[in-house]
Amino acid sequence: MSTRSDPLFPAGARFEAAKPGISGENMRSSFGARLDEVLQSRGSLCVGIDPHPALLAAWGLGDDVDGLSRFAEVCVEAFGTVAAVVKPQSAFFETCGSGGIAVLERTITACRDAGALVLLDAKRGDIGTTMAAYAHAYLDPSAPLAVDAMTLSPYLGVDSLQPAFDAAERHGAGAFVLALTSNPEGPQVQHARGMDGRSVAQAVLDSVAARNAGAEPFGSLGAVVGATIAGADIDLTTLNGAFLVPGIGAQGGTAEDVRRIFGGALPNVLPSVSREVLRHGPDRSALRDAVARQIEAFAFLRG
Amino acid sequence: MSTRSDPLFPAGARFEAAKPGISGENMRSSFGARLDEVLQSRGSLCVGIDPHPALLAAWGLGDDVDGLSRFAEVCVEAFGTVAAVVKPQSAFFETCGSGGIAVLERTITACRDAGALVLLDAKRGDIGTTMAAYAHAYLDPSAPLAVDAMTLSPYLGVDSLQPAFDAAERHGAGAFVLALTSNPEGPQVQHARGMDGRSVAQAVLDSVAARNAGAEPFGSLGAVVGATIAGADIDLTTLNGAFLVPGIGAQGGTAEDVRRIFGGALPNVLPSVSREVLRHGPDRSALRDAVARQIEAFAFLRG
Repeated sequence: MSTRSDPLFPAGARFEAAKPGISGENMRSSFGARLDEVLQSRGSLCVGIDPHPALLAAWGLGDDVDGLSRFAEVCVEAFGTVAAVVKPQSAFFETCGSGGIAVLERTITACRDAGALVLLDAKRGDIGTTMAAYAHAYLDPSAPLAVDAMTLSPYLGVDSLQPAFDAAERHGAGAFVLALTSNPEGPQVQHARGMDGRSVAQAVLDSVAARNAGAEPFGSLGAVVGATIAGADIDLTTLNGAFLVPGIGAQGGTAEDVRRIFGGALPNVLPSVSREVLRHGPDRSALRDAVARQIEAFAFLRG
Repeated sequence: MSTRSDPLFPAGARFEAAKPGISGENMRSSFGARLDEVLQSRGSLCVGIDPHPALLAAWGLGDDVDGLSRFAEVCVEAFGTVAAVVKPQSAFFETCGSGGIAVLERTITACRDAGALVLLDAKRGDIGTTMAAYAHAYLDPSAPLAVDAMTLSPYLGVDSLQPAFDAAERHGAGAFVLALTSNPEGPQVQHARGMDGRSVAQAVLDSVAARNAGAEPFGSLGAVVGATIAGADIDLTTLNGAFLVPGIGAQGGTAEDVRRIFGGALPNVLPSVSREVLRHGPDRSALRDAVARQIEAFAFLRG
């Protein structure tokens, strides 16, 4: 893989990266290429680390920094070496303030050491220098919370996320933009239509697709699209990027839903499970078995 | 200062706080009431703490935890006792990971000790237990990052933010929902129209307004509406809550813009300035003078 042309780092950029003082992280291949590779080798699955109070209690852990830390350690030990992508949910770490964020830092490092790509579910979105700060915080390898990719929210307009798209390109990182979600409250915003007749969700997808155009194997910018969207008049064929598909398992989405909704883009689908796996903890073997079953259930995506 | 009535802890709350097992924080009056009181006593102004790299450099500080910490300390010393509301921008603290979040914790405490209400600009938005976790992280007084109010982003639908609205009510906290912003990328989402013909921004405002109905002096849920929105066909008269109005000063918005756009709701307007004040630092007197000028410029809101 390392010898082929890398669309995110044309020759000039690579030359710059070779200068002293530039981190080796800047030399890594694009997120799209790295994601493609790990989906191929580990199977198409993203597993969440969602230490919410009910799960902490079920695992016999306290709803505090120590509980968070133990929960995350068990997750990494159980599936960090088998899941293609691990997705910590930032909110649950933020509840414990700086202590929780320190756990998040260690969790990110441990996941990456285990060979998983780390996608931080943070749903950040802002404008200008503030958006650039979020991009730096999570996509710049020099930052303490640097991950492989993050989720973004486009209420301020997709183009307001440009500093994150730029950072992703610069650092070989990725971003998944909320487009069309399965929750019942989503259509109020996502199905609304602009002057050109397109829905907000379609406009988001089109905007991300334009940025991914021509990238191989696919672009580093993805979209979040629910597994149980119903009756949505949306074109999922042009993204040329990955679809993060939450809502699988405990939230009602099935492999059949994925097959039906993403028919034309199955190899680009990244199904995301959380509770469906985590309810089997804290037993590591049971967690690992649950992950294995999900990987098997979605083997058809790249079969 | 210590002998006058403290708008953050009216007599009733102090009494309740003395009871065993009941946290004084839980008994405090509503955010709407506390905001109304502090706007009356200090004037209508929200001042940002936005330690972005260019400002840190201009203040002779490093772009690191120590620089963040010094920047925030100077801000609190300069205007914590004079600004009605202080608004730390979460993104800039997140860039330094857990160390930055520890600075944010100290900054929040220091602002509140100085008598300002703290509004965390975080633009969080999610669903279900994840949204509940964000609400707990920032609106529950028992959490390390508890503030008086936070900003929220409604891309997943306003109703998906309900756990935050519930937490606000439970804890006497507040929330400001992004509605109609001034950035050029915003209309793509915010001007799109739903089946009923309303724009997304109007639907957001109406949804927040419904929750504020009947509250006195006004409700604890606010909306973010830019100071330089142009040609927007939107009804700003029914919110019965505060409008957080960014884009003042360095971003082009003026007192005249505010007067024109919010004509029918001026007492509920909370103008927000950041760079327009912060560019005068790190000299504390110069910062304080800049805040005083802005308070004076917006005195007409409650004149």
